[in-house]
Amino acid sequence: MAKVTPRTLSGFMELLPADQMKMERMMQILRESYAVYGFTPLDTPVIESAEVLLAKGGGETEKQIYRFQKGDSDLALRFDLTVPLAKYVAANYANLSFPFRRYQIGKVYRGERAQRGRFREFYQADIDVIGDGKLDISNEAEIPAIIYHTFSRLGLSKFKIRVNNRKLLNGFYAMNGMSEKAGEIMRTVDKLDKIGPQKVKQLLIDEVKMLPDKSENVLDFMAIQGSNDYVLSRLEEYRQMNEPTFNQGLDELIEVTKYLAAFGVPEENFAIDLTIARGLDYYTGTVYETVMTEHPEIGSVCSGGRYDNLAEYYTDRQLPGVGISIGLTRLFYVLSEQGLLSDDIVTAPCDALVLPMTEDLGAAVSAATVLRNAGVRTQIYGEKKKFKAKMSYADKIGAPFVLLLGEDEIAEGLVSLKDMTSGEQQKVSAAEAARLIREVVDERGKKPVIKDR
Amino acid sequence: MAKVTPRTLSGFMELLPADQMKMERMMQILRESYAVYGFTPLDTPVIESAEVLLAKGGGETEKQIYRFQKGDSDLALRFDLTVPLAKYVAANYANLSFPFRRYQIGKVYRGERAQRGRFREFYQADIDVIGDGKLDISNEAEIPAIIYHTFSRLGLSKFKIRVNNRKLLNGFYAMNGMSEKAGEIMRTVDKLDKIGPQKVKQLLIDEVKMLPDKSENVLDFMAIQGSNDYVLSRLEEYRQMNEPTFNQGLDELIEVTKYLAAFGVPEENFAIDLTIARGLDYYTGTVYETVMTEHPEIGSVCSGGRYDNLAEYYTDRQLPGVGISIGLTRLFYVLSEQGLLSDDIVTAPCDALVLPMTEDLGAAVSAATVLRNAGVRTQIYGEKKKFKAKMSYADKIGAPFVLLLGEDEIAEGLVSLKDMTSGEQQKVSAAEAARLIREVVDERGKKPVIKDR
Repeated sequence: MAKVTPRTLSGFMELLPADQMKMERMMQILRESYAVYGFTPLDTPVIESAEVLLAKGGGETEKQIYRFQKGDSDLALRFDLTVPLAKYVAANYANLSFPFRRYQIGKVYRGERAQRGRFREFYQADIDVIGDGKLDISNEAEIPAIIYHTFSRLGLSKFKIRVNNRKLLNGFYAMNGMSEKAGEIMRTVDKLDKIGPQKVKQLLIDEVKMLPDKSENVLDFMAIQGSNDYVLSRLEEYRQMNEPTFNQGLDELIEVTKYLAAFGVPEENFAIDLTIARGLDYYTGTVYETVMTEHPEIGSVCSGGRYDNLAEYYTDRQLPGVGISIGLTRLFYVLSEQGLLSDDIVTAPCDALVLPMTEDLGAAVSAATVLRNAGVRTQIYGEKKKFKAKMSYADKIGAPFVLLLGEDEIAEGLVSLKDMTSGEQQKVSAAEAARLIREVVDERGKKPVIKDR
Repeated sequence: MAKVTPRTLSGFMELLPADQMKMERMMQILRESYAVYGFTPLDTPVIESAEVLLAKGGGETEKQIYRFQKGDSDLALRFDLTVPLAKYVAANYANLSFPFRRYQIGKVYRGERAQRGRFREFYQADIDVIGDGKLDISNEAEIPAIIYHTFSRLGLSKFKIRVNNRKLLNGFYAMNGMSEKAGEIMRTVDKLDKIGPQKVKQLLIDEVKMLPDKSENVLDFMAIQGSNDYVLSRLEEYRQMNEPTFNQGLDELIEVTKYLAAFGVPEENFAIDLTIARGLDYYTGTVYETVMTEHPEIGSVCSGGRYDNLAEYYTDRQLPGVGISIGLTRLFYVLSEQGLLSDDIVTAPCDALVLPMTEDLGAAVSAATVLRNAGVRTQIYGEKKKFKAKMSYADKIGAPFVLLLGEDEIAEGLVSLKDMTSGEQQKVSAAEAARLIREVVDERGKKPVIKDR
């Protein structure tokens, strides 16, 4: 028969088993971490009506979208999890309680030009808090705590949550009479990290057509950095300008930093960073980015902010919210490329491989049942192979433990438990084997999936 | 602004939060249960090249498939998880160890005619064991144990795993000289449940054109039922016919029933059922169906079987396997329709809702941090609302516990813990509150998600 070459499309991540185990572990931590902060899981379709999905329309999005006809229907694959959330909240408004806190971990689709590290199908892991009409600033204050605990549980330690406030920025530009150039200025300031303050200043003068002293003002403002107390005290100096948007933004920033200690967020993992802007028209309050301090080249691994109007294309109701998103597929890819995924966690399909050494499998099956009832991930190797081939299989899948069941063990009602790491072997009861295996596996299960220490 | 009506496509399941919690619980149990039997998680793309996905081609599948162009690419959405598995195993053969045991829980797409209870996007939850060249019968013997433990953990008790063997059937038809009519006969026998033996016999005579005594033979054979020992002893009577396929099928069936007790499967949840055939050309050995005994109208909730050639369209390698599939979305739908989903598990977004009664949220945040560090799913209600509105929110989301933090509590360094089920309220430390909440919530967490007792 003529064969079709089995292949996976470029831009679509498909992992081998050991890597997939690490990915699953990361997803499980995200689910647990989001749940502990009181977010409810949501699952929306991958396919939506194109009219619904593209209600906002325009821009890069529409070019990248997977859109197609099925029968008479004009369909599209979701390109993020925010638009489906807006649809869901607008459609189910009467059945939801606000603030509505949901998390969603799901695949989204963008037909980007294929290149290394760019994905056309990728997981986003989002949380959002949606208010009905109003949403208290305390919700914005909680976000850094969620980011901190989530990344800590993943194993990261050298990361910084960088926070800014759009009202503060807009107010600052207003008090300098630069409101109409705010967008252009923010895009230029965004290059500070790459080209440094001198070149940014020159660009502000040459291309944004700002006066030198105004551009100096901008650079002075952006250069404010240090401890939260120091940055806030420097910002207080601007309060006397009585620019209401600025002052509201400052009040919000104070509120967001106020509870950090009570939330258990160390100040070393947090920084007010006035250079952060995050998109130009969507966010209206606090904005967040998260960077791995020793891997700035990775860019932000968790970003988001406050917005005032989630579902304006679907409803007249004012639905403000705050949310963050982790680009999980890309994060996994860069961590893997950087060698930052740990090999400490068990990536084998099982914790224990049971090797029957007799024709009858009864004793092996009974031992496996004891292990499984004790929560040990157990596989019975029933293939009729030589001992060497069986042990080689155990090695290849990386099973941490092997149970040998020969005539002697069966006669004694015991199992031979071999620790594949140390090579040690002992005869014990199946129940005792289960206990010993759980001890080791549970300990390894506590090890972080990312190594960043 | 003109609004777009927010709607979800028909045939696409999108649940409200409480139902979604139940669905997540079911998925989590499936993941854990499959893992405990030594299956590794796999995740493949939703989109594949149409050429790869439709390598087999033909039939209903091709009509229902979501297929579209993107740029120059002819793409399609996966319609099951078996074809992507075949592709994966063929493509990654050199990097896998065999037997390769994987589970996958994922969405698949079929553009069926929309009707109540039919879904175009639905979850399948599959396990498969793939051998390289050979695969021992013991793998087929293990499948009923996996089904039994998985459904038991979901909360089902009144279910039966019905097992048959295709070799046994083929051998039986061969010994009666009816091999060329086997397909037609099986399709007719499939109606036994619905129309009874007399009408089936008439159909066999009138439409399949069988002689009356031959059709009698078929009905006698199909009528064999009872305990495993009884059924097997009746089947032994046919062994003297020396039909090799039949005898091999009988040996396999004996092997599959032999270890049931050692696997912990009660005989009441298992039955050899000679009327089961499951599709006509794919399966070659043991076949499985699972029915809820008090809800036969639901049909099989978990089916599968042994096949000899997983990836014949992609590779010359012989890759035999055995697998089962749960149609999770449909199962959830019918359980919900039948009122069989339990309300015992906590479906609120949080276990504890913290209600600050003062302007400053510091004490509330600190208490929430204690709870969260203890694994209590905790939400802080920071909205500036009246007490009554706050309690009404707690009621509406179904929070099992509320923590009140007023001036008195803050002065005493305690929290008022209100059990929303009993209405009881007590002042305790945050740590003690966490302990009390965990006690109740962990207990409710052990309750099954399906009520079938």
